[in-house]
Amino acid sequence: MKLDSNWFVEEVGGLAVSIKIRDKVHDEQSAYQHIEVYETEAFGYLLTLDGATMLTSRDNFIYHEMLSHPALFTHSDPKNVVIVGGGDCGTLREVLKHPEVKEVTLVELDERVTRVSEKFFPELCESNSDPRVQFHFGDGIQWMAEARAESVDVIALDTTDPVGHAARLFSPQFYRDCLNVLRVGGIVVAQSESPILNLELIKNIRLAMAEAGAQDIMTLSFPQCTYPSGWWSVTMARKGQGFDGFREADAMRKSFETRYYNAKVHAACLVLPEFMQEAFREERQGFV
Amino acid sequence: MKLDSNWFVEEVGGLAVSIKIRDKVHDEQSAYQHIEVYETEAFGYLLTLDGATMLTSRDNFIYHEMLSHPALFTHSDPKNVVIVGGGDCGTLREVLKHPEVKEVTLVELDERVTRVSEKFFPELCESNSDPRVQFHFGDGIQWMAEARAESVDVIALDTTDPVGHAARLFSPQFYRDCLNVLRVGGIVVAQSESPILNLELIKNIRLAMAEAGAQDIMTLSFPQCTYPSGWWSVTMARKGQGFDGFREADAMRKSFETRYYNAKVHAACLVLPEFMQEAFREERQGFV
Repeated sequence: MKLDSNWFVEEVGGLAVSIKIRDKVHDEQSAYQHIEVYETEAFGYLLTLDGATMLTSRDNFIYHEMLSHPALFTHSDPKNVVIVGGGDCGTLREVLKHPEVKEVTLVELDERVTRVSEKFFPELCESNSDPRVQFHFGDGIQWMAEARAESVDVIALDTTDPVGHAARLFSPQFYRDCLNVLRVGGIVVAQSESPILNLELIKNIRLAMAEAGAQDIMTLSFPQCTYPSGWWSVTMARKGQGFDGFREADAMRKSFETRYYNAKVHAACLVLPEFMQEAFREERQGFV
Repeated sequence: MKLDSNWFVEEVGGLAVSIKIRDKVHDEQSAYQHIEVYETEAFGYLLTLDGATMLTSRDNFIYHEMLSHPALFTHSDPKNVVIVGGGDCGTLREVLKHPEVKEVTLVELDERVTRVSEKFFPELCESNSDPRVQFHFGDGIQWMAEARAESVDVIALDTTDPVGHAARLFSPQFYRDCLNVLRVGGIVVAQSESPILNLELIKNIRLAMAEAGAQDIMTLSFPQCTYPSGWWSVTMARKGQGFDGFREADAMRKSFETRYYNAKVHAACLVLPEFMQEAFREERQGFV
């Protein structure tokens, strides 16, 4: 078959994911990027930035849950959380489900992403007026360089792909600033692209985190059908201590609902298939 | 972006996966179906049947390993194995890696699929002359109806999508014939499509297996980036006993190489996310 013009197409490495659209309902050039929203045939609304899929109404729950809950249930007492990027507020909503969290700062470059999300993804923005939230619309790199040392427990890097401006959010210098802002035992968790299309990139993220001084690093994966390859990952790095399990009992009796994450999913998502183990073994050998 | 004519496109439910092609290298109308092979930009060769992706050189290993090894390492002593479909011989190759297996019968409707695979996917056919293999080119439904009762340990249903002729391979009557052919403790394992696009179909497969008399049923999932949604599943049903773990020690010291499967992956792939647990809970309530 051929795809007519009623499809949004994203191509990476000889593989394309396409989503059938009914209509474009928003089109805006902000100060930073091209923001578009489509009404799709089967996935609700679709938000794209500079032509890359950010999220759809139907399947964003997996990404947002998996960027939030594994890190938060790994930390022993996550009180202060910072989200960099994530202007759609889906990660913010998941983070705020944790009663231990006392304060969340969302540092998003482009306020327009949040305003557009409030209109088309109100379900993701339902907790935006929670008194624990502070919005800071500005540069995440600058924010992190100037933030108080040892003041944060979990930093979630809910960024776009590592191209253009966002590339610096994947650099050793930025991770060093993140680790500086974390308390000991703190965790920085970054979206880290597709295990099958971007394995070298994941290795580079892990190397950069190690170079920045992280004590321990873990990559987990999950399905995400509207992202290239349908398989996605996040990578967690910890300051000053190793990853030694997670708060499994708390995850089992969590006080909130999820649609993908649960305590068993937490353990399972950390298991690496053979080819990823192999790739990360080489990486460690490179260090010795 | 738009996709030009140099892309193979498969669409399911408002989502499309496309693979960039360099050339069509085989095009044949067999007695049963339209067989095409493409040379792709980044995924090696691509085999399609009636316009649906069967496999690519690059990522078929995940599907073939996950259809084979979880079932074979769950059975206590898999001596006799039957594969229905699977004419590309990728599942056959994985099954033959198990030294316990004494005999494998591959029942494929269309001999041309095997002949074409021998040409374009020789790596999948490398074990075809193993003395333990018997090829039977004919109808799997008829074969199963006529096979000797209690003569087989594992049946792998490596089928196309449940449309047209293949729909009968997802029916209670066919599963009943499979269970009849299995010894007590035997396992029938079926490819069961995408958890996010075809959840109702997976529920129907599970219901049909239960209706056919299976004692226990389990669905597992894995990434498969060239199949619709990039996320796929297989469903296992057992005759006369429940699923109570697997031969974990044997899987840990397996005598052969894999690229996706390992003992920890085995345990992890069985973990169901919340929305699938929810769907299968309803199913059980429907039974009471």
